[in-house]
Amino acid sequence: MSNMLIAQSGGPTAAINASLSGAIQEAIRSKEIGQIYGALNGIQGVLAGTIVDLRAQFSKQEDFTVLECTPAMALGSCRFRLPEEDADPALYQKIDEIFFHYDIGYFFYIGGNDSMDTVDKLSRHFGRIGRDVKVIGIPKTIDNDLPGTDHAPGFGSSAKFIATAMLEIIRDCYVYDTDSVTIVEIMGRHAGWLAASAALPRTVGARAPHLIYLPEVAFDPEQFIRDVKEVQSLTRNCIVAVSEGVRLEDGTFAAENFQSGAVDAFGHRYLSGVGKYLESLVREKIGCKVRSIELNVLQRCSSHLMSATDVREARKIGSYAIRFALQGHTGVMMVFERVSNLPYMVRIGCKPVSEIANREQLVPRAWINKQGNDVTDEMFEYLLPLIEGEVPYPTQNGMPVHFVLNKSIVE
Amino acid sequence: MSNMLIAQSGGPTAAINASLSGAIQEAIRSKEIGQIYGALNGIQGVLAGTIVDLRAQFSKQEDFTVLECTPAMALGSCRFRLPEEDADPALYQKIDEIFFHYDIGYFFYIGGNDSMDTVDKLSRHFGRIGRDVKVIGIPKTIDNDLPGTDHAPGFGSSAKFIATAMLEIIRDCYVYDTDSVTIVEIMGRHAGWLAASAALPRTVGARAPHLIYLPEVAFDPEQFIRDVKEVQSLTRNCIVAVSEGVRLEDGTFAAENFQSGAVDAFGHRYLSGVGKYLESLVREKIGCKVRSIELNVLQRCSSHLMSATDVREARKIGSYAIRFALQGHTGVMMVFERVSNLPYMVRIGCKPVSEIANREQLVPRAWINKQGNDVTDEMFEYLLPLIEGEVPYPTQNGMPVHFVLNKSIVE
Repeated sequence: MSNMLIAQSGGPTAAINASLSGAIQEAIRSKEIGQIYGALNGIQGVLAGTIVDLRAQFSKQEDFTVLECTPAMALGSCRFRLPEEDADPALYQKIDEIFFHYDIGYFFYIGGNDSMDTVDKLSRHFGRIGRDVKVIGIPKTIDNDLPGTDHAPGFGSSAKFIATAMLEIIRDCYVYDTDSVTIVEIMGRHAGWLAASAALPRTVGARAPHLIYLPEVAFDPEQFIRDVKEVQSLTRNCIVAVSEGVRLEDGTFAAENFQSGAVDAFGHRYLSGVGKYLESLVREKIGCKVRSIELNVLQRCSSHLMSATDVREARKIGSYAIRFALQGHTGVMMVFERVSNLPYMVRIGCKPVSEIANREQLVPRAWINKQGNDVTDEMFEYLLPLIEGEVPYPTQNGMPVHFVLNKSIVE
Repeated sequence: MSNMLIAQSGGPTAAINASLSGAIQEAIRSKEIGQIYGALNGIQGVLAGTIVDLRAQFSKQEDFTVLECTPAMALGSCRFRLPEEDADPALYQKIDEIFFHYDIGYFFYIGGNDSMDTVDKLSRHFGRIGRDVKVIGIPKTIDNDLPGTDHAPGFGSSAKFIATAMLEIIRDCYVYDTDSVTIVEIMGRHAGWLAASAALPRTVGARAPHLIYLPEVAFDPEQFIRDVKEVQSLTRNCIVAVSEGVRLEDGTFAAENFQSGAVDAFGHRYLSGVGKYLESLVREKIGCKVRSIELNVLQRCSSHLMSATDVREARKIGSYAIRFALQGHTGVMMVFERVSNLPYMVRIGCKPVSEIANREQLVPRAWINKQGNDVTDEMFEYLLPLIEGEVPYPTQNGMPVHFVLNKSIVE
């Protein structure tokens, strides 16, 4: 029997702690795992030796419910990319010492693309030195850009928040009887999955958004203005969803040129997003009432509005990671394989993390319409099951109750 | 027996349709009210004669539930301010014709400050010409700036959204082990009630926000930087809540001077808020990682996260408006009088609208700390009952179901 270590990394999501919860619960059920340790702030916590005892922190089922309804990493996160072993052997030696000291036989890393790179490097390292440590990646990302899996935990809750916010913004737009353009800027630097989710209100009768721009198709500002004018010839309120990452034909971010001409009172370059850029463009070229809305970090941390499907799957993939490690898998990332849309069914498996790390899963061109300003029916079929179901959460004083980690370091 | 007409006006709130629901349900129960009409887009719809039949649109209780969970005005809104009668007698004549044509004996206007001005003018007009029309204002505002009432429907749900979003943003801030400043910009041009609500997470154990700036106290940029530095001497993550309406000592909006120096690629003045201004200020004067988040329209239209207290009260004040009109009241706005905090109890009454219209209820100076960068315990006691309770809402495809008005005009 040896001990397990788990850590979280990358950007926050609403569902990332559900995977942590599933992993801890499965480890408690297992007779083959001794101590259940957590590292604070990802791999940096491993290097710093900031290791906490997790088993002691969960005495009843309700503790797991609170953990699952808490956004962002309960264990903290980092943005640290592990170097190659030959570039910094001392760092790997430090990791070896910590793993030896705590007798770690299983390491689980919940994260996105960069974290899978760490899983890949660590598993290769332990293989090379012949140390029996199973290293498994548990996916999480709101961007849904991890390849090898049908989708990643965290995405469904973000998509649900975006769809719901968009539905409410649409109501907010339609109250006045005046011509207006509303631009909603949505996260996603390279992949347009989140912006695509803004289309979902149309499946429940909403007439908007009318236009959707994803980073997968080159953005043409002149065509954008023509698109808006065409919508305006049919309706007074034009509503646009745009991915923060849309780029011009030459590969530069659409907002870049706009920003370079703008300085603030200190003479600094303005850091504004594509929403503000398109807002200015509409004001300049059309001249009607226009506003832009950035959904910002609420897209990734709104645990008060999670997808029950997402939370259930995040918990399950966390618990399967433990089982797969005990079966001997290492150097893999846990994945979902979609069996069917109706009824919605997925199968959980794993794939070599070397095939996944440092690659991105983009929206297929066929799921974007020819004009590049909307998504197709395939996208709706793909997205709808992922946002299904609501998650009741514990409250106090009318606000959600969040999990508080005991950060006492285990010596 | 005569007919009633109801309309909605001003800016959207999450709970405004609960007041409409309460009024319609009470009118249906009453034997003294004939037709139940709604005017589209507020008083502009009265002038345009765009009147719909509301009674026919509600066949079962569930229809009211859907209406109450729908954000922004189901009847549409307007930003039209009624002129004085002697400035435009023809306009009042047009109103008289419409009221005569539809045999309106009761007029209800759900709105904020400008709408109460309309209630005042209309009730005086009908008094002057000796026409028996009871005119009653039903309050709604997210800003909570209506005087004469302990609070206004709509505020509690916005406050709950802001408190919850702040709690989630705090979790999002604390995942990385680096120095950072996060600035959250909150609605409220003159009154700081909404920004004050951002303090509520501290009642459930959150350590933030550390600093809160309201429009009621003059904002000093240099003091702000000193405040941030003081927080940073105690903790790595400094979290600030700021009202969009904070002003300098000279009365200008804090962001104004900042904006005047900034132009976009078209040479236009940048339209940025106080959040972006403070973000630049921190970057310039402190130089650490800093970001600003604008909660934007989600503050006023997030029906997926309403306060049960707010919705219940909004419904009740709508239904009491009908009763008060039938008792003969006119030229009044419905108000809440707080009886006690623990247990929370309010009494519903009415006050002459002439005492309310065109005045603002600001945060008392005594509820803001001496340094002007936080709120006091009185504020927590005032706010907490207003955000209590959750409202389950009907869903379809994982998204809220919203009410769809039949806009067929009654001839």
